[in-house]
Formats: sequence, C-alpha cells, structure tokens
Amino acid sequence: MNSAILLVKILDLIGTFVFAISGAALGVERDMDLFGVLVLAFVTAVAGGIARDELIGAIPPESIANWHNLALAVVAGLLVFRFSKSFYRLQHPVQFFDAAGLGVFAVAGTQKALDYGINWPMAAVLGMISGIGGGMVRDMLTAQVPTVLRADVYAVAALAGALVVVVGSSVGLQPILCALVGISLCVFLRLMALYRGWKLPVASSRPPGSKQD
Amino acid sequence: MNSAILLVKILDLIGTFVFAISGAALGVERDMDLFGVLVLAFVTAVAGGIARDELIGAIPPESIANWHNLALAVVAGLLVFRFSKSFYRLQHPVQFFDAAGLGVFAVAGTQKALDYGINWPMAAVLGMISGIGGGMVRDMLTAQVPTVLRADVYAVAALAGALVVVVGSSVGLQPILCALVGISLCVFLRLMALYRGWKLPVASSRPPGSKQD
Amino acid sequence: MNSAILLVKILDLIGTFVFAISGAALGVERDMDLFGVLVLAFVTAVAGGIARDELIGAIPPESIANWHNLALAVVAGLLVFRFSKSFYRLQHPVQFFDAAGLGVFAVAGTQKALDYGINWPMAAVLGMISGIGGGMVRDMLTAQVPTVLRADVYAVAALAGALVVVVGSSVGLQPILCALVGISLCVFLRLMALYRGWKLPVASSRPPGSKQD
Repeated sequence: MNSAILLVKILDLIGTFVFAISGAALGVERDMDLFGVLVLAFVTAVAGGIARDELIGAIPPESIANWHNLALAVVAGLLVFRFSKSFYRLQHPVQFFDAAGLGVFAVAGTQKALDYGINWPMAAVLGMISGIGGGMVRDMLTAQVPTVLRADVYAVAALAGALVVVVGSSVGLQPILCALVGISLCVFLRLMALYRGWKLPVASSRPPGSKQD
Repeated sequence: MNSAILLVKILDLIGTFVFAISGAALGVERDMDLFGVLVLAFVTAVAGGIARDELIGAIPPESIANWHNLALAVVAGLLVFRFSKSFYRLQHPVQFFDAAGLGVFAVAGTQKALDYGINWPMAAVLGMISGIGGGMVRDMLTAQVPTVLRADVYAVAALAGALVVVVGSSVGLQPILCALVGISLCVFLRLMALYRGWKLPVASSRPPGSKQD
Repeated sequence: MNSAILLVKILDLIGTFVFAISGAALGVERDMDLFGVLVLAFVTAVAGGIARDELIGAIPPESIANWHNLALAVVAGLLVFRFSKSFYRLQHPVQFFDAAGLGVFAVAGTQKALDYGINWPMAAVLGMISGIGGGMVRDMLTAQVPTVLRADVYAVAALAGALVVVVGSSVGLQPILCALVGISLCVFLRLMALYRGWKLPVASSRPPGSKQD
C-alpha cells in the first residue's frame, strides 16, 4: 500500500504543476494582473482535488493541510507570468498541459477514492471530477462555458483513464502500471480529439431554426 | 422515523430523475455532445443535495456514497438525448420538470436537515438550497445568470415548500402529508409565476438612466 | 483565548452585514426581485466563511449551525432594497462596503484557521479565501468575471491583512491589535487601488494583436 500512497502523492504534485500552468496561461491571455494569474493558477491546480477530498471526507483537503501545492502553483504561475512570451511561441500550450493534468488527476483521484472505500462507479466519477474540476472552475471564473461541456472527448477521456485504474485495481494489477496506462489513454484520447477531431455524437433531432446562440 | 427516512429516500430519487431531465434538456438545447449532456444531467441532479449534505455534515454525500443517483441521472440523460425531438414538442419541458424537481428537493432537503438536528430557519434554507442548488450550478455551467435570481417566485416557491415541512414537523403532522402539501405548494407557486406572471416586487426607486445592461 | 474567540465572532457578524449590503446592492443594480436580492445578500455574506469552514473541517459551518448570519443578511438586504435610492446617492457604495467586508473577513478567517491548527501559509490563504469567496460567488452568480481576478490589488489586499494576523500571532501580539492593523491595511490598500490606481504588474510580453476580448 505504501507504494500506492507514494504514487498518488507524486502524481498529485505533477498534476498540480501542469494544471497551475494551464490556469496561469489563461490568466495571462486574459490580461489579468500578477495576483490574478497566481490565484487562477492555484484554483485551477487544486479545485478538482479539493472537491474530491471534500466529497470523500478527507478533510482538511490535501492542498489545505499542507502548503506544498500552494508553493508549486505559485512557482508555476510566476514562471508563466515571467516567460509568457515563450509560452505563446509554443503551439497550444494551454491545451497540451490541460490534457496532461487531466490524465494525471483523473488517475490519482480514482486511486484515492478507492483507498477511502468509495464504490467503484463513484470512484471513477470522483477521478473524473478530480480531473475536470480545476478546469471547470477556471473556466467559470473567466465567465466562459467550461471546456468540459463543449469539447469533444474531454470528460470522457478523464473517465477512460479513471476506469483503467478501477478495472486494474479489481483484477489486482500493479497500481503504478495502471496509473501509467490510465494517464496515457486519457492523454491519447484528448489529443486525438484535439488534432484528429474525434467526437461524441450530438443530438441530431432538433428542429431547424431552434438554435439559441 | 423509518417512514420519514424512506420518504426522504424516495423523494430524493424522484427529484434526481426530474432534475437530470431538466439538466439534460438544457444540454441538448445548447448543442452539447452526449457526454456533456450526461455531465450536465448528473450535476443538475445532485449538486443541490451534495451542497446540503456537505453543509450538514453527511459526508460522503448520499449521491457519492452510492451509485443509484448516478445511474438514474445517466438513464434520464440518455432518454432526453435519444428522444430530444419529442422533448422539444412538449411545451416548456425544461420549465415544468424544473418546477417539479424544485418542490421535491426542497421538501426532502428540509426533512433531512431537520433529521440532522439543524435549527428550523436554517433547515428551511437548506431545503431551499437543495432545491435551487442544482439549477444554479446548471445555469452557472452554461454561463447564464441563474434563473433563481431572475425568475419571479423561484427560490421563494422552494422556501414556501420547505416552510410547510418545518411547520408541519413542529406541530407533529405526518411527514408524508407535509411532504405532499409542501411539494404541491411549491409547484403551484412556480407555475403561477410562469403562466400567470406572479411576481415579487423590484426596487423601484432607482434613478432613471442608471440601467447597466 | 476567550477574547480571540469573541473577537472572531464579532468580526464575523460585522463582515456578514457589510458583505450582505454589497451583495444586495449589486442585486438591486441588476433589477433582481426582492427574493433575488435577499439570496444574493446571503450568499455574498456567507459563501467565503462557509468555504473556509468546509475546508478546515468546521462542519456544519458557523452560518449554517446558527441563524444569526441569515437574519443579519436578510435585514441588510431589506434595508438596501427599501432605501436603494439613498444607496445610489452614496458614491460607489458597493465598492466601499466590499473593501470593508474584505478586510474584516480576511482577518477573522485567518484567525479561525490558525485556531484550527492550519499551517501559517495556508491559514493566510484561507483568510484570503474567506475575504474574496463571497464576492467571487456574487460575481459568478451575476455572470461576470470575478472582481478579484480583474481588480488591481484586491486579493492581495486581503492577503496583506491576513499576513498581519499570521505574523502578529507568531510573535505573540494581542489578537485585537493585529486584527485592527490587518483590517486597516487591507482597506487602505483597496482604497488606494480604487482611488489612486495602485496596480500590480501585467505580463507585458504578449504579441500584438493576440487580445481576446
């Protein structure tokens, strides 16, 4: 069990860092000031994990009980703020870091929910929430409809990664192996959606002219 | 007490289903994909109850501790997605299911808060939150000002239903009777507001020309 | 310690009242009906404190366990609703009450987090969250990007007040003294930002023409 706990901890730190970058990059894009960027970095990084911890009863949540996640998010935010020019040169940096954070958080969140004795369907959902929660709050804070509800294969990629952990755990596979496969699957699905246009079906039976945009 | 607990359980399942339909219908209307529709169905169905459970200390919340609410929301979401054409033919389906879910959740939420020893004014508020929480999150997720803050007699209908439960409980009436009266009152007030234009007062003393829209 | 607890309690009530006024004033400005104004007053007043209490494990939160905050918020909301004309005559009433509430909540929230054994960096962050949470939810409910992410020196003012409490507590100063200094510093910074245009840096290295508004 020790290795599983250590694994969750390490994944949590990596996910925190990449999501903080994703939040900070959006903050810079929206012309927020330094503190706004740091707040957005921190919120994006920890909102999903805090939601998960509050829901499974791990209170105070990990990222409140210690200050490591805060420090990581601040460092990530400062880096993005200082080197925002370079971040712009990279193509779609927000989307890539978002995909990586999504996979890492979904897998780590599922593992933690299972450790707390949550039943497997809800453990997978809690993993998904860990993954999509930060981005949803980030988008709500910048007053846009969360990517998760619009983007093709976003939440479903997180859920796929979470399900790998659930299935792997039930058949007794190595946690570290399941984690790597789950993260890879999630990132793969998300990148396929972004660059190959993989989509989920949209209800096609709407009467013409009823569009609301 | 057994019958009260059973009552809360049954009401919770009904409310979950109708709110999931309300969320899914809005998702289809906004051209979300299948997964977005399911996420919105689930969130709309459980956000109010989860907020209530977190606030009264029933952790993990009902809809996390078991998977029945998830299953119900997914079924409701799939039905709406598959038969969205039929749902469009019904007039104002979103608004009707919204009113029904509002009453059911307000009543069930008040009963549960009382069972957890919350004082009566806050129990009524928690009932109201159970009722309006799902819809508020649904609206915030789709980037619109929540209906509850705009719509005439929305939150107040939920509060009226909640107060019936509070008063009935303090004078020792049958829980099932109070529940039915409370739900009916809430739905009645909401439908009167929708179709008869019942309104609450708006502050009329604003200087002309100060409108911000 | 008794005086510290009493201090937190009194500050909490004052902060509740001024934030409720801030929320109600925005509700009137947006032409909400009486109930919408009261809901917004209550939510703005208690959302930050509830977030703090949920995060440190003080469940049920203060403003759920008793009905005093609800009563205060309703009174404040009714006053604003009834005398909205007078409130409009005062210049920038929303902004002033917002600054006062910000300082009071940041200081009280930090003190409470320290009392619950939270480490000092996160105690300061929790104080900041107590201060900015209500306003963030108020802004999200009215579908605008939260002031905290836009406004110059907003969250940073709350954090400055919170840090005074943290530092004062660690060197053993009188809590009441730290509280007054912290609140004053926060209000001073916020008003300087509003009326003197004090600002934090914005990342200046963006390529021209990449603006998204």
